[in-house]
Amino acid sequence: MNGGQALIRTLVNSGVDVCFMNPGTSEMHFVAALDDVPEMRGVLGLFEGVVTGAADGYARMADKPAATLLHLGPGLGNGVANLHNARKAKTPIVNIVGDHATYHKQYDAQLESDIESIARNVSPGFVRWCKEPAHVGEDAVETVRAAYGPPGQVATLILPADVSWTEGAAPADGAKRPPRREASSENVELAAKALRSGEPTGILIGGSACRRDALDLIARLSAATGCKVLCETFPSRIERGAGLPAVDRIAYLAEFAMTQLDGLAHLVLVDAKAPVSFFAYPEKPSYLVPDGCEVHVLADPSEDATRALQALCEAVGASGGGAVADAARPGRPTGELSAQTVCEALGAVLPEGAIVSDEGNTSGLWAARATEGAPPHDWLCLTGGAIGQGLPVAVGAAIACPDRRVVSIEADGSAMYTLQSLWTMAREGLDVTMIVFANRSYAVLNMELGRVGATSGGAKAKEMLDISRPDIDFVSLAKGLGIPAVRPDDAESFTTELERALNTPGPSLLEAVIPGLM
Amino acid sequence: MNGGQALIRTLVNSGVDVCFMNPGTSEMHFVAALDDVPEMRGVLGLFEGVVTGAADGYARMADKPAATLLHLGPGLGNGVANLHNARKAKTPIVNIVGDHATYHKQYDAQLESDIESIARNVSPGFVRWCKEPAHVGEDAVETVRAAYGPPGQVATLILPADVSWTEGAAPADGAKRPPRREASSENVELAAKALRSGEPTGILIGGSACRRDALDLIARLSAATGCKVLCETFPSRIERGAGLPAVDRIAYLAEFAMTQLDGLAHLVLVDAKAPVSFFAYPEKPSYLVPDGCEVHVLADPSEDATRALQALCEAVGASGGGAVADAARPGRPTGELSAQTVCEALGAVLPEGAIVSDEGNTSGLWAARATEGAPPHDWLCLTGGAIGQGLPVAVGAAIACPDRRVVSIEADGSAMYTLQSLWTMAREGLDVTMIVFANRSYAVLNMELGRVGATSGGAKAKEMLDISRPDIDFVSLAKGLGIPAVRPDDAESFTTELERALNTPGPSLLEAVIPGLM
Repeated sequence: MNGGQALIRTLVNSGVDVCFMNPGTSEMHFVAALDDVPEMRGVLGLFEGVVTGAADGYARMADKPAATLLHLGPGLGNGVANLHNARKAKTPIVNIVGDHATYHKQYDAQLESDIESIARNVSPGFVRWCKEPAHVGEDAVETVRAAYGPPGQVATLILPADVSWTEGAAPADGAKRPPRREASSENVELAAKALRSGEPTGILIGGSACRRDALDLIARLSAATGCKVLCETFPSRIERGAGLPAVDRIAYLAEFAMTQLDGLAHLVLVDAKAPVSFFAYPEKPSYLVPDGCEVHVLADPSEDATRALQALCEAVGASGGGAVADAARPGRPTGELSAQTVCEALGAVLPEGAIVSDEGNTSGLWAARATEGAPPHDWLCLTGGAIGQGLPVAVGAAIACPDRRVVSIEADGSAMYTLQSLWTMAREGLDVTMIVFANRSYAVLNMELGRVGATSGGAKAKEMLDISRPDIDFVSLAKGLGIPAVRPDDAESFTTELERALNTPGPSLLEAVIPGLM
Repeated sequence: MNGGQALIRTLVNSGVDVCFMNPGTSEMHFVAALDDVPEMRGVLGLFEGVVTGAADGYARMADKPAATLLHLGPGLGNGVANLHNARKAKTPIVNIVGDHATYHKQYDAQLESDIESIARNVSPGFVRWCKEPAHVGEDAVETVRAAYGPPGQVATLILPADVSWTEGAAPADGAKRPPRREASSENVELAAKALRSGEPTGILIGGSACRRDALDLIARLSAATGCKVLCETFPSRIERGAGLPAVDRIAYLAEFAMTQLDGLAHLVLVDAKAPVSFFAYPEKPSYLVPDGCEVHVLADPSEDATRALQALCEAVGASGGGAVADAARPGRPTGELSAQTVCEALGAVLPEGAIVSDEGNTSGLWAARATEGAPPHDWLCLTGGAIGQGLPVAVGAAIACPDRRVVSIEADGSAMYTLQSLWTMAREGLDVTMIVFANRSYAVLNMELGRVGATSGGAKAKEMLDISRPDIDFVSLAKGLGIPAVRPDDAESFTTELERALNTPGPSLLEAVIPGLM
């Protein structure tokens, strides 16, 4: 057995049985080994950003890592942006980067570069260089273990070509998912004390605390103590909809976030970090917790948030039920297409069990409210701010959950970073319905230009934020990648087409040409 | 004057007056400053790989650097692959990466990451963190100087948002291009001795030795001494065509390269490195210089190759002229479209002064021979093996040389990495004619699968190298990005359409559906 075969077998033994890939010559023995280990599914992406983003989306929904297969330093580079987003989401990923044969590196061939330097950016906690076939099994187990954490992380395994092709390797038994640590009883007691204090107290949730079990407990706490519940701005995955507790997310705009946090004397963090501004702005604070507000950590990202919340409920006597969202949908919108009517259309027809990959950016602002009372669904956000995540995450989520409908709501500018995702959707026949908000602008930057005080910007600056001239035709782009697409003219026809797309197997795209924000 | 304004002014003072960019919020003051310095041209790319590849193509043709503007670590990550290619090409690039405000970094906001770790991969020789507005001018000058080298390199300047927006900066006078060092007379004498020895001697050229002046001198040396002349496999820019010396490039396949080098007793390197195999293959050598062949460096990449060649000509008494390629074009091809007939069509109609950006990969194998006797033109290669370079390089070359026609010959798989380039071509109205070889396969990998001995690969492996299912429709993709495109059916109509495209202002694309290699 060669190194490539032993690696794939060990991954499968560890429950990692999907590998998103964009391989090159140095990975050919790994690719050939796919035929030796039938349990491993290979999914090809035409660009590495698709591969890494898909691995992120997959793990968010499957609650276990996928593997990636990337080609040397440049392949890893192309995958960095979505690995960055995965790092911020604390998503477990087994990130395999092929390298030249060990003895070939000294010759500084064309593709030679310092892979580890790039890997440290996205995998600061774990970069393993597999040096010999005999170590492959153990190295693979260590990589899977590191990926799981807790908290989850991108764990990088660098695999030289000769380690992959040399015989003498053996698979290892496979890694098990390690349990999360229990939060300290002292932290539970401090949080309980804050909730009992009678002072204004908020609970800020993120990560694993955005799943149904945890949300139910938080709703009970809120009902019992009157505490305010907030969610991080961009949760990696939140369960929501009718019958689930509705939670406000901290606003992207720091001004609004500060209003949400205003007056709190205590802020209890549950798998979340204290809120900070997304960017810095002249003369505005970066740290958004109000002066004098005490911050308490109930559970950090490596700890079991749900058990900590159970203990906290017991400590404050929160035994009753909490408020949940009523079943309610917006009416089917009429009139002109706009960011708002498109979001209302989504709310009107979103199917039960849908998975929404949200990279709608400014245009998606109305989406959360419009879907709050829709049937239960999952919502996946842009966790690290590196645009180009939404479409690949939709790919991965659809592979993880073949029985569910994935809806990708996507800003036009962001869609252009990893549009190659559509080809993988077509090849794999994934049930992904895409909505592209075509406002033909980096609208968020037009807003930010003023917010950062860059008021001297004139025509040349504006041109760098404008993505018309030429207008992008997403219907043609989708067709070019094998996906049916339409561009409805008004809200009624958009809703009709959306409903049709959601009920048709396979991928499709709707382009919504809408006015910009300004 | 704020830091952004001082930076742009200093770049312009240094002769750097084009900035390819894909900015975000942290770069808004730089973007706004474009309106304060009218001499600086901003060119927007919808993806950072377009930006960095365009900067590479620009500098290869303009012989001076462009600037880039990228958004934090993920933006730099998206640009890594083409910065890698630029590093291998020794292309000067002033690579500006925006960062969070200095005081904001401590909060680990969504887009925070270790930028420097990525930058070290592509800018191992120069990464400068601009810490204060008062240092901007000097830091910009140092960055431009570092980019020039010699040899040229990617020089990275990290620009925090608050350095950009704070007043108190002043521009500096600007950097001048430093001269190349003179090669040592001892090296000239050693090379002369080899040429005079009567033993089989080769001259291997690369980099700056691929321009007309150097090529003429090398042809004289060859005529006078009978030495064999070879060129590196993937020169960054070589001048060629009728009336210029024709030089064989070292073959990509090591087996063929070894045949080219076989029997040499001396190999003289002129701005080139001793040849090594692109990848390692089991049981095959990585270092391709024959046993017993002595390697002499006439000029290294930091030295003046042309002056060294002049001195060498004097030393061996090579005063006569050398052989040049005759004016000769293949006949207009007839019959079925194939990689060969497409290349013949190119040879039949390539206009004088064209710039060919060559990422044809396996399909482009016939292109060099078919164009050898075409009117003089420049040929730009994939220097670092990171595919997705050809289209962005075409963008940059067209911006550098608005009076010349750029021809981009592009493999379908490679085209998909940075297809966003087409939008910039459309926006800027660039005279770029694209030929996409659609063999619907990562053909090189199908070949490499066997060459590396990965013979166990079956149906699953083959599927990872196949990019049909669905077939990519490049005509629709081009239309989606604002570019007219056609898909001719046979060689005659292809040639006619190619000729028409070459004589029509602005960009256009021809898709050639051709059989694969195997």
